[in-house]
Amino acid sequence: KAFGALGGCGLTEFVGTAIGHTIGLVIANVDPLLHEKMKINPKYRSIGIIGARTGAGPHIFAADEAVKATNSEVVLIELARDTEGGAGHGCLILFGAEDVSDARRAVEVTLNEVHRTMGDVYGTPAGHLEFQYTARASGALNKAFGAPLGQAFAITVGAPAAIGVMLADTAAKAATVQAVGYASPGNGTSFSNEVIFMFTGDSGAVRQAVIAARDVGKTLLATLDPSEIKSTTTPYI
Amino acid sequence: KAFGALGGCGLTEFVGTAIGHTIGLVIANVDPLLHEKMKINPKYRSIGIIGARTGAGPHIFAADEAVKATNSEVVLIELARDTEGGAGHGCLILFGAEDVSDARRAVEVTLNEVHRTMGDVYGTPAGHLEFQYTARASGALNKAFGAPLGQAFAITVGAPAAIGVMLADTAAKAATVQAVGYASPGNGTSFSNEVIFMFTGDSGAVRQAVIAARDVGKTLLATLDPSEIKSTTTPYI
Amino acid sequence: KAFGALGGCGLTEFVGTAIGHTIGLVIANVDPLLHEKMKINPKYRSIGIIGARTGAGPHIFAADEAVKATNSEVVLIELARDTEGGAGHGCLILFGAEDVSDARRAVEVTLNEVHRTMGDVYGTPAGHLEFQYTARASGALNKAFGAPLGQAFAITVGAPAAIGVMLADTAAKAATVQAVGYASPGNGTSFSNEVIFMFTGDSGAVRQAVIAARDVGKTLLATLDPSEIKSTTTPYI
Repeated sequence: KAFGALGGCGLTEFVGTAIGHTIGLVIANVDPLLHEKMKINPKYRSIGIIGARTGAGPHIFAADEAVKATNSEVVLIELARDTEGGAGHGCLILFGAEDVSDARRAVEVTLNEVHRTMGDVYGTPAGHLEFQYTARASGALNKAFGAPLGQAFAITVGAPAAIGVMLADTAAKAATVQAVGYASPGNGTSFSNEVIFMFTGDSGAVRQAVIAARDVGKTLLATLDPSEIKSTTTPYI
Repeated sequence: KAFGALGGCGLTEFVGTAIGHTIGLVIANVDPLLHEKMKINPKYRSIGIIGARTGAGPHIFAADEAVKATNSEVVLIELARDTEGGAGHGCLILFGAEDVSDARRAVEVTLNEVHRTMGDVYGTPAGHLEFQYTARASGALNKAFGAPLGQAFAITVGAPAAIGVMLADTAAKAATVQAVGYASPGNGTSFSNEVIFMFTGDSGAVRQAVIAARDVGKTLLATLDPSEIKSTTTPYI
Repeated sequence: KAFGALGGCGLTEFVGTAIGHTIGLVIANVDPLLHEKMKINPKYRSIGIIGARTGAGPHIFAADEAVKATNSEVVLIELARDTEGGAGHGCLILFGAEDVSDARRAVEVTLNEVHRTMGDVYGTPAGHLEFQYTARASGALNKAFGAPLGQAFAITVGAPAAIGVMLADTAAKAATVQAVGYASPGNGTSFSNEVIFMFTGDSGAVRQAVIAARDVGKTLLATLDPSEIKSTTTPYI
């Protein structure tokens, strides 16, 4: 049994794995009995499946690239309260497609993108920071966060949630951006210990707001724990 | 202070402990002030209490045996988001009885059964799998999952939730079963990172569906972490 | 980068840290864009922020002292499902003030009080117990728990939740108190594995009820794990 297998595990439904205890799967023809219980649009016989123990933002932004690159649609995004004892979420994302090859391709693109979108995730034993940015939001970001289609869009995430409040205020003041949403432990998250701020605007302004928030976040998270604050992979913003 | 004490801790309310940081208690006469706040049927003066940090399926299936074996009723089942950093649930189960000896007996039966019902729970650092089966569902399974009384009933559980989707599809296709329910991180669980599939049918078909899902689950969970996938106690299905 | 810095981290918004991965922050003028999304009363331009990975009761009782001592109001209390793999909550508490110095002072008082209010928090790998008491409840306790203003008020918390049920029954029977609330994993908590009992009454009776519950809680928690059950700081009740 291979760890982090890309080549498969003997099941045709298995697509691959990625960082964050992330698994990608595909079902060519969902059992009709199950399909009905899942309340997915019946026209999508094939579904692609992304699941992770750690991460929701990274996976949703990765899935957004998959929607752009394939003939598929995101039909469900659910955030578990997870991160394996951490303060955030895991996720379950379903792609619907009429053709199994499209569903598989969407999962492959997502798994490949997750390495990049983990780049501005920073964790210590005390909490975590997450920043995501895209120049052009597509269906996954629209469904998950209400991002306006085709516009620049970003999120800042801070945990414990108090840090997330400060990231939001910093981003809002750093450049001319428009608030799209604000989620907190009791309102819009799955009771995670995060504040998530979602915003759009001119792409330069959106990036500038994210970068300002990232600097403040690192300074604040450092007050709670002496661990080095480093990227999960490689920063991309 | 004894660990895993069966003989007691000096409190008459203490019944015993079991795997999963599970404790069993009994209250002969619930304080009327509290009884009202708990919103339990007032005819049950005595309550039996099962609580666990890890496990909900194992405890609910164990409680179902207790309902069959005693003159008690399950009056409340609540699932905490727990498992001590894992992807699943803990639980709080209350039995109501008119006589304290019935409440105590229900707790004793449940504690004894949990060792068995943990048999098809398989965990690794990446997630877990759970399978439960009964030839004849009683009140606890009816209350928790809507299981039809007196019928064969089973559940498959996979975490991260993506694996649970695949277990559901595998079970649904492996034999002629009827779906009773489907729970996911955002719909029907307490934001756990699980998909739970609940089904009934001919007892042979139900068992066959569980066994097929169990094989697939072990193969998929192995792709995320190299740890051996072994039963928490001894498989029973 | 300092650990547990009281003197600051270079940001004027930083107030300090406390036990429980607790951070205190202040924003003199919340960005209007963000202010609207946060749904806070617009008259409060300045907000004080308390966030913690571990603790909600300790922080709410500490914040109650801050409300008494300053010209501020608690405008939001949200409980994350957290405790870093434990069974309980983290929290986000926002103070509103018309003047930044009042908001800052409220955060300072809270941070200082948390050391005391962690005094009757007792944890082991199996769960935790928490007891809080005040002779006179103010705005934070009223907002969080419905405590009657100016009255003696206490809570008992037990995790796993089964122990919390027993603490509630013990407190209710130990003295003449009035139940204010009862929260459980599926009703009133953020799916934490706790039962919280909230009660008021004559101050002597309320204290007596807490102390009786504390004795029972320690005995029960000891049956699940052999670790010594000791105060997080120093008991104060």
